[in-house]
Amino acid sequence: MTVARRAVVLLSGGLDSATVMAIARSEGYELYAISVAYGQRHMAEIKASADVARSLGARRHQVMHVNLNDVGGSALTDTSIDVPETPSEGIPVTYVPARNTLFLSLALGWAEVVGATDIFIGVNAVDYSGYPDCRPEFVAAFERLANVATRVGIEGGGIQIHTPLIDLSKADIVRIGTQLGVDYAQTVSCYQADDQGRACGRCDSCRLRRAGFESAGITDPTRYY
Amino acid sequence: MTVARRAVVLLSGGLDSATVMAIARSEGYELYAISVAYGQRHMAEIKASADVARSLGARRHQVMHVNLNDVGGSALTDTSIDVPETPSEGIPVTYVPARNTLFLSLALGWAEVVGATDIFIGVNAVDYSGYPDCRPEFVAAFERLANVATRVGIEGGGIQIHTPLIDLSKADIVRIGTQLGVDYAQTVSCYQADDQGRACGRCDSCRLRRAGFESAGITDPTRYY
Repeated sequence: MTVARRAVVLLSGGLDSATVMAIARSEGYELYAISVAYGQRHMAEIKASADVARSLGARRHQVMHVNLNDVGGSALTDTSIDVPETPSEGIPVTYVPARNTLFLSLALGWAEVVGATDIFIGVNAVDYSGYPDCRPEFVAAFERLANVATRVGIEGGGIQIHTPLIDLSKADIVRIGTQLGVDYAQTVSCYQADDQGRACGRCDSCRLRRAGFESAGITDPTRYY
Repeated sequence: MTVARRAVVLLSGGLDSATVMAIARSEGYELYAISVAYGQRHMAEIKASADVARSLGARRHQVMHVNLNDVGGSALTDTSIDVPETPSEGIPVTYVPARNTLFLSLALGWAEVVGATDIFIGVNAVDYSGYPDCRPEFVAAFERLANVATRVGIEGGGIQIHTPLIDLSKADIVRIGTQLGVDYAQTVSCYQADDQGRACGRCDSCRLRRAGFESAGITDPTRYY
C-alpha cells in the first residue's frame, strides 16, 4: 500500500486555482487547500474557496488571515482606489505588493507542518504580462528560497513549486478544468463580486474569464449582477 | 536638501531587532518599523515593539496580524508543545515553519507601498546555528527573490536585505546597541514572557540574552518573574 503524497494548494476560490486543485488531484496528491483572507474587496472568494475545497475532496482547508488592508497600495485592498474597468499599461493597480511571495510563504509554512514537499499555485501566462510575481523567474526564485528556508528543504527532499497553468491560455484552463470535473459555478474571479459571489462582468478579471469560456466554446456559468 | 532614504525594519520587540533599528537609524534611514502578531505565546513582544519604535523615532509602526497558531507546528504557536528549558540538538521546537520567509514577505510588501528598497532584519550567528531561515544563504536567496517579485525590484533600484547582526555575538550586539542608545529594558526576548513583559530566565532565548549582557560587562536590565 502506498501513502498518497501530500500537496499544499493555494486556493483563491477563483477559476485558475480551482483548476490547479483539480490537476493536483488528478496527479494523485492528497490535497491541503490554503486560502488567504487579506482584506481583499472580494471576500466572496473565501466562501467560494470552501465550496471548491469540499467539491474537490481536500483533506483539509486552512484559511489564513492577514490584514493587508492596513498596508494598502492596491485597488484590491484599499477601497479608496477604484478597480479599473478598462485595461491599463504596465503593472495594474490591482497588483497587491508582494502578494504571491506572501501566499507562497504561508503555503510553505503549512507544507512544513503537514510534511508536504509539493506546493501548487495557479499563476499563468495571462496574468504574468502584468504582475511581476506571476512570472516563471519569480516561481524559480521562490523554489530556490524554499529549499534553503525550511527544515524540509534541508533535511528532506527538495520542495517543488508546481505551476501547471503557467503556459496556458484562459480557454485551455477552462477546457482542462471542465474535463477534470471542476464546477466553475462555485468559483468567483471578479475583483468586485457582491456578497453572493455575483460578478460585475466589467473588471479585467471578469473580462479574461468571460473570454476564456467563449473561446473554449463552453457555457459560462458565472452569475453576473 | 536631501530626502532621507526609507528603510523597513522588522521589529519583534526583542533585543536583536531593537539593535538593528538603532543601526538603521545611525545610518540615516527614515524608519518604517513592522511587527508581526502571529499568535506567538509572547504577545508582550508586540507591546515592547511599540515602545522601541517610539523611542527610536520610527516614522511609522505597522503591526501585521497572521493566525499562524491555526497552523501550529512550533512551541511558539502551539500551546500543546512545551518551550524547552535545556538546549537541544538540531532544529529546535521553537522554530516556526517559514517564519522569516513570511516576515520578509510582509516587509517587502510594505516596502513597495512606502517606496523603500532597504529592509533590515535581525538574524544573527547565534540563531542560525539552529534555524534554517537565519542563515546567510537564506537571506541571499530572499534578496534574489525580492528583486524579481516586486514592482520596486524591477522598475526601481535593487532591493537590499540588510542583516547587520549576522556575524555578531550576543555580547557584541549588546555593546553596539548600548552605544547607539537602545533602552534594552523596553525589549522582551523571552519565549514565555508574562503579560507585563517579564522574562522566565530559563528558555533558550533568555539564556542567550543573559549571557550576552554578562559577557559584554553591561548590567542586564531584564525584568524576570
